[in-house]
Amino acid sequence: MNPKAIIKEILEKNDIAHVVFVGCGASKADLYPAKYFLDQNAQKLSVSHYTSNEFNYATPALVNENTIVITASLGGTTPETVEANAVAKAKGAHVVSLTRSEGSPLTKDADYVIIHGFAENYAAKLEKTGYALQLAVELLNQTEGYAHYEDMQDGFDKIYELSQQSALSARKEAKLFAEQFKDEDVIYVMSSGATHEVAYSTSVCLMMEMQWINSGTFHAGEYFHGPFEITDKDVPFILLMNDGTTRPIDARALTFLERFDAKTAVVDGLDYGLSSIIEKSVIDYFNPFVITAVFRVYAEELAKARQHPLTKRRYMWKLEY
Amino acid sequence: MNPKAIIKEILEKNDIAHVVFVGCGASKADLYPAKYFLDQNAQKLSVSHYTSNEFNYATPALVNENTIVITASLGGTTPETVEANAVAKAKGAHVVSLTRSEGSPLTKDADYVIIHGFAENYAAKLEKTGYALQLAVELLNQTEGYAHYEDMQDGFDKIYELSQQSALSARKEAKLFAEQFKDEDVIYVMSSGATHEVAYSTSVCLMMEMQWINSGTFHAGEYFHGPFEITDKDVPFILLMNDGTTRPIDARALTFLERFDAKTAVVDGLDYGLSSIIEKSVIDYFNPFVITAVFRVYAEELAKARQHPLTKRRYMWKLEY
Repeated sequence: MNPKAIIKEILEKNDIAHVVFVGCGASKADLYPAKYFLDQNAQKLSVSHYTSNEFNYATPALVNENTIVITASLGGTTPETVEANAVAKAKGAHVVSLTRSEGSPLTKDADYVIIHGFAENYAAKLEKTGYALQLAVELLNQTEGYAHYEDMQDGFDKIYELSQQSALSARKEAKLFAEQFKDEDVIYVMSSGATHEVAYSTSVCLMMEMQWINSGTFHAGEYFHGPFEITDKDVPFILLMNDGTTRPIDARALTFLERFDAKTAVVDGLDYGLSSIIEKSVIDYFNPFVITAVFRVYAEELAKARQHPLTKRRYMWKLEY
Repeated sequence: MNPKAIIKEILEKNDIAHVVFVGCGASKADLYPAKYFLDQNAQKLSVSHYTSNEFNYATPALVNENTIVITASLGGTTPETVEANAVAKAKGAHVVSLTRSEGSPLTKDADYVIIHGFAENYAAKLEKTGYALQLAVELLNQTEGYAHYEDMQDGFDKIYELSQQSALSARKEAKLFAEQFKDEDVIYVMSSGATHEVAYSTSVCLMMEMQWINSGTFHAGEYFHGPFEITDKDVPFILLMNDGTTRPIDARALTFLERFDAKTAVVDGLDYGLSSIIEKSVIDYFNPFVITAVFRVYAEELAKARQHPLTKRRYMWKLEY
């Protein structure tokens, strides 16, 4: 069932007052643009976002039949997220799950399942984010209404191809990045707006998990309230810049980084032509797509330069924990 | 005016449907236990939490006369938070501000100001957190009602003295921590539940800002979804353990850290007698108080061992940015 039909069917059963996004690691981060979209536009709906075990042990009080819980797990086997579906279902919530894996444990307690791509190409890796965002747009449009609904649909029609092309065009810059950053012991990552948790997943997944590089991450606006004291010549930062509402926050961080000669890699939505194909009214929400696709190529080149494949793990897939 | 009277007066003017917590750095983190309390207990109120400039540039749509915006800035001069008050006021929201500094710029657009202590002792540093939590409890109790209101009041009566005594009793363990961790290049910090953002402020303020030590922070439940691959013999972690609902999440992280001989410092609410004076129904919300107070002593000892005062800055207080 598509996002529009899923939301329609849920709204025929219950009024919806709350939406809760739940996942772990990159799957948690991939739900963030949808949360950000609702924060930016919903006048009444309450919106929250949790890592799965926090949701399980400290379940928010507003989870009931007036709540949609949207969960995601790439392989559909993340135990905490499978459990989150059971917790949500037991409270009477409507559970919508995103996974690439049909019939996986995640689908057991889900009322609705959306199967997305992943491995096919750079664009496919964005489908999880895209479906979550579509669910958010449908929920808003079918409850409170949303003035830029058509602009969003137009964006969804174009963003995958733009992201794929952007990734393919980024190889040269990515190789340069990899050469410059391959020997670093620690790399910080920051962003803002809809891209805030792309910075998060870049730090905890691409750097720490997949490259065993020390890393920290924070909102680019928070940089000035603690983290910036670490700034010095050659301290490495990755700044993911938005072409949209929160660009001044990202730009302020860049100005400071450059002023003190920090070693800075910038991936900027503005450089990939977002504004030429996406309406200004909705451009914020499509930055995470292009930036995620482009940075994937950066990560691939970093992995090559360090001779450390992105699939290499010490613990995951190897032992029980 | 006290939190109870402030909430009463606001509710006489408007129905309240939303509460938004806004601050930067440690002042953002200090508001988190109040957010967590409402997430855990509010059936209807929507609750959100932003760094100030994200609130300013990407103001959530639900900020209006049915919204309370609670802001905090220790000295009352943080420009982004001062601006947040103006943004909130322009949208018709009720603005309540917490600061130690009477007459500071933060108080200009605030409808209500609560002046809190800070420098007097370890307990005084917790007053900002305490007033925010009291506002949350009052708002819930005066709107939806709250079954454990008396237990919370009893907790507020006791938590400052317990926290002060806990801090004073922690000097020996703090010195041991400082000796063990003083030469580390990077230190990770994690927690969960109401203490989640105590880990955050410990990382971005105490480590990065005040000690110029590289640091990363994440929810203890997220540790298993990326960050744990960095775990190795002697990789340093600080784990802030809760005596409450999310303890199993913290304990699972500890088990893994110990299994792989990570260099781990634990500050545990259970070790300081929380459960002997706070009712079980509300114990979650008081963990951040005791743990913050105790870890302050750890930070003081770390600063001494590294001959790097907690007040030393490269950029803050020194230049415009």
